[in-house]
Amino acid sequence: MTKVIDFQTNPSSYRHWKVAYDGPVANLYMDVDENGGLFEGYELKLNSYDLGVDIELADVVQRMRFEHPQVKVVVMQSAKEKVFCAGANIRMLGGAEHSHKVNFCKFTNETRNTFETALADSGQNYICAVKGACAGGGYELALACNHIMLTDDSTSSVSLPEVPLLAVLPGTGGLTRVTDKRKVRRDLADVFCATEEGVKGKRAVQWRLVDEVIPNSKFDETVVVRAREMAAASDKPDVAEGIILTPLTRSFSEDGVSYSSVEVTLDRGGRRATVTVKGPDADAPPNMAAFEAEGAEAWILRCARELDDAILHLRNNEKELGLIEFQTQGDPSRVMAHEALMLDNKDHWLAREVLQYWKRVLKRVDMTSRSLVAIVEHGSCFAGPLAELLWAVDRSYMMLEDFEGDNRETAVITMSLGNFGNYPMGNDLTRLETRFLGTPEQVEKLKSSTGTPLEADDAEELGLITYAYDDIDWEDEVRLFMEERASFSPDAMTGMEANLRFAGPETMETRIFGRLTAWQNWIFQRPNAVGDDGALQRYGTGVRGKYNMERV
Amino acid sequence: MTKVIDFQTNPSSYRHWKVAYDGPVANLYMDVDENGGLFEGYELKLNSYDLGVDIELADVVQRMRFEHPQVKVVVMQSAKEKVFCAGANIRMLGGAEHSHKVNFCKFTNETRNTFETALADSGQNYICAVKGACAGGGYELALACNHIMLTDDSTSSVSLPEVPLLAVLPGTGGLTRVTDKRKVRRDLADVFCATEEGVKGKRAVQWRLVDEVIPNSKFDETVVVRAREMAAASDKPDVAEGIILTPLTRSFSEDGVSYSSVEVTLDRGGRRATVTVKGPDADAPPNMAAFEAEGAEAWILRCARELDDAILHLRNNEKELGLIEFQTQGDPSRVMAHEALMLDNKDHWLAREVLQYWKRVLKRVDMTSRSLVAIVEHGSCFAGPLAELLWAVDRSYMMLEDFEGDNRETAVITMSLGNFGNYPMGNDLTRLETRFLGTPEQVEKLKSSTGTPLEADDAEELGLITYAYDDIDWEDEVRLFMEERASFSPDAMTGMEANLRFAGPETMETRIFGRLTAWQNWIFQRPNAVGDDGALQRYGTGVRGKYNMERV
Repeated sequence: MTKVIDFQTNPSSYRHWKVAYDGPVANLYMDVDENGGLFEGYELKLNSYDLGVDIELADVVQRMRFEHPQVKVVVMQSAKEKVFCAGANIRMLGGAEHSHKVNFCKFTNETRNTFETALADSGQNYICAVKGACAGGGYELALACNHIMLTDDSTSSVSLPEVPLLAVLPGTGGLTRVTDKRKVRRDLADVFCATEEGVKGKRAVQWRLVDEVIPNSKFDETVVVRAREMAAASDKPDVAEGIILTPLTRSFSEDGVSYSSVEVTLDRGGRRATVTVKGPDADAPPNMAAFEAEGAEAWILRCARELDDAILHLRNNEKELGLIEFQTQGDPSRVMAHEALMLDNKDHWLAREVLQYWKRVLKRVDMTSRSLVAIVEHGSCFAGPLAELLWAVDRSYMMLEDFEGDNRETAVITMSLGNFGNYPMGNDLTRLETRFLGTPEQVEKLKSSTGTPLEADDAEELGLITYAYDDIDWEDEVRLFMEERASFSPDAMTGMEANLRFAGPETMETRIFGRLTAWQNWIFQRPNAVGDDGALQRYGTGVRGKYNMERV
Repeated sequence: MTKVIDFQTNPSSYRHWKVAYDGPVANLYMDVDENGGLFEGYELKLNSYDLGVDIELADVVQRMRFEHPQVKVVVMQSAKEKVFCAGANIRMLGGAEHSHKVNFCKFTNETRNTFETALADSGQNYICAVKGACAGGGYELALACNHIMLTDDSTSSVSLPEVPLLAVLPGTGGLTRVTDKRKVRRDLADVFCATEEGVKGKRAVQWRLVDEVIPNSKFDETVVVRAREMAAASDKPDVAEGIILTPLTRSFSEDGVSYSSVEVTLDRGGRRATVTVKGPDADAPPNMAAFEAEGAEAWILRCARELDDAILHLRNNEKELGLIEFQTQGDPSRVMAHEALMLDNKDHWLAREVLQYWKRVLKRVDMTSRSLVAIVEHGSCFAGPLAELLWAVDRSYMMLEDFEGDNRETAVITMSLGNFGNYPMGNDLTRLETRFLGTPEQVEKLKSSTGTPLEADDAEELGLITYAYDDIDWEDEVRLFMEERASFSPDAMTGMEANLRFAGPETMETRIFGRLTAWQNWIFQRPNAVGDDGALQRYGTGVRGKYNMERV
């Protein structure tokens, strides 16, 4: 499994999903092509999925927001007879490297979070219409929808058979959503998660596993009725037309990836990638009509899409690069102006979508299991949404005063009103609130500096950066940090960063990425799951896994 | 490392800790005996510790509450020159099995939580006076104290060198307390946790790592002053005399352990232990004076101590027994009466300590990484504190109606007022609140059944148990469950139970046991830490760990 994974796709290339639009209702059909696996060595039978299937789903969800803003209800369903979805493909999991399993779960989790919150964020409500077996990752898809309808027949059930069958966890949010979203009583959850065949019929409602169970003969019509009802009850404003998410301008080379507004350069020897975000090279559109006309070409949307793709590329295709260095270059006042158009028009559907997309991209940065550093050089534009990168990273270095032979504008940081509420982290706090958890009064104080370009001494004094260095010390300090970081155990970094980045309150989202994922990753290392005699390897052979019975 | 670990000790046996009492102040000295390791193969140099050192510390903390209620301030300090504590012993960690490392961390975490909350629970405030190097687990000891004083000299510093030095995490609460208790800014936390030599002097205060830094020449006297000030400011009521925690009555055999009020029987073939708690065989003492006279012999205290010891024994010495079955036998009304004396005298120091000790013992049950089941037979006494076991376990089975040839009293469950607030879980909710997270009105409704003995049909209807079975089905159903449970992967059970048991809000405590522990356990499996070329194995050889640099 070493081929380059591409996270870009579009409807004309889909092999696994179909969408039928019906006014405010979109019918989303899962119809996985058995022979369309991302890698060799397995067939995607029974609507089972791999990362390729999920890349398409993420694309559907994203385009639903930008290209189909008319949609108020999405009905997720299966196009196959007798099966809704069998979950993640077991042979794929059995053959995959540890790092692929971990990254696969992370991306699928991000996709599920995105459609789960589409209701709150954009008024698009996902309901799940289950006919046939809905097992494991299949039920985790359903759990991330906000209304689950189950047909009442002998073959339709919901189940999480991972524990009894595969000796791993329902790790794509399953356990967390059962207890914290569906609020299933814990002993019933224990029974449910230990029962291979799952639960069907009325009991599934009684146990809170689904929202309604409907006689088979009335199922299809009831789904249609329910979708229309929900669409009618929606307070999402009507939008006539979306914008098209055109293909990214992107070129790969040996040493990196070049986008229109993002440049990725790789230093394989130093195990480091530099992501340079380029600020807008034109003024902001004068109003939302002009912005809509620019569509996907508008800097603030284009930049988000390119940064998102760059992060996913580095995560999945450059696993030996342990450090990502964020830089920016451009005019901070222009970044502020482009963001200001969005902030000033938050009630406009497209401005809203753009801001929320930035929120998601920045969360993707938070969740990226690499050491992250921001290098604030002269000529940079860490302002507004780009300033968030300073507080998403593990630490930051900023140029102080003049550097010999460097004629770029003196490095400054510029906060916008957006930094105080538009880009919350998974813990529902802003990055500034998380940063100043011990001194919340500092966040209030910072508000008065909104819009002021802050040079390094001020930024350091205000706690916005970790270190400010002048021309004499800069090169050595930055180099020493990078060398040191490259010498540490990648696993210890992963664990340390996962703990230090998410202080403060927990949400279902932080719990899924923190607690559930960590336990799943632990199990993904254990011989009982992944060893030659473990359950994942033995699946399908008719012989159960052979376990070392020692408890920890 | 296969010897039986005994969790019982007493001051006359201590090898590693000394306490000097000075009115309301107790001076607690760490003075680890290098040659007093629990196992062969390592020396406990520089006040480094293993599980044996922590068993003594837990005993100190427990006796401080019951035997020395006069104490209002405990000053934790080192009796050795130039070192406070070097943390967990690395050679012990390097040589220990995965399960021992995990159980070692769990027990040390429980001990730290206990002295951390002694202020809120009993008005005993732990302050930490640091002279010399305070590294890794040593700083984690300090972090669990509520006031950290650091001397200002060239050799005294606080540090968490686990990541750079050992490629593991500061997993005994370190990372969590840095971000969530001390609220250290996350980039500074990143620098701190990546810096082998740690931080000293004023910077340690500026970064919030310690509360005060004091010139070396004035350190000792300032510690004395600070301890007296805190004792004087304490609102803990004065108590003339404590009670003695006499040695437990306990006998081990091939098939189990027998205590006065707890019987542990082992079924090694079925990989199962049965813990039967016996209710009181005498009436409750008439008042607190009589209760104090009974002291450690009083049923409700004796039973808590025995249950605590039994759980620790099973966790650490019987790792292949994957299922713990809880039973009770006795008169529920007597259990209620013994608890009622405590509830009615909550302002009495000893009643308060007993209730809080039950809280801790029940949390120990929650945190036990075994499948837990309650079997509610006729003649049982699941009432008050013992009823909590029903909601601590993963599921429960209760006898319904008459069983042929069984003349015991019909099985009932009796809730007390204690079940609605005196035994909160780590998430700060009661077990009933956690159980009914989706239907909080049910908890209100249950209050009206307080004191009423509920037979199986009522208990099932009210959601207090999982299953009620009559004589016809009982044996088969219970047997099938036990056989099924014994067939599952122990690792999958560990992960599943760790997720299903702790729904609802997160606290620092749930975060330490959930997120931090899970990541640490993950790392404890990774070759970069524990492989032949990993950092733990290579420690002390002068050669750093050799790492696979792939990130996940």
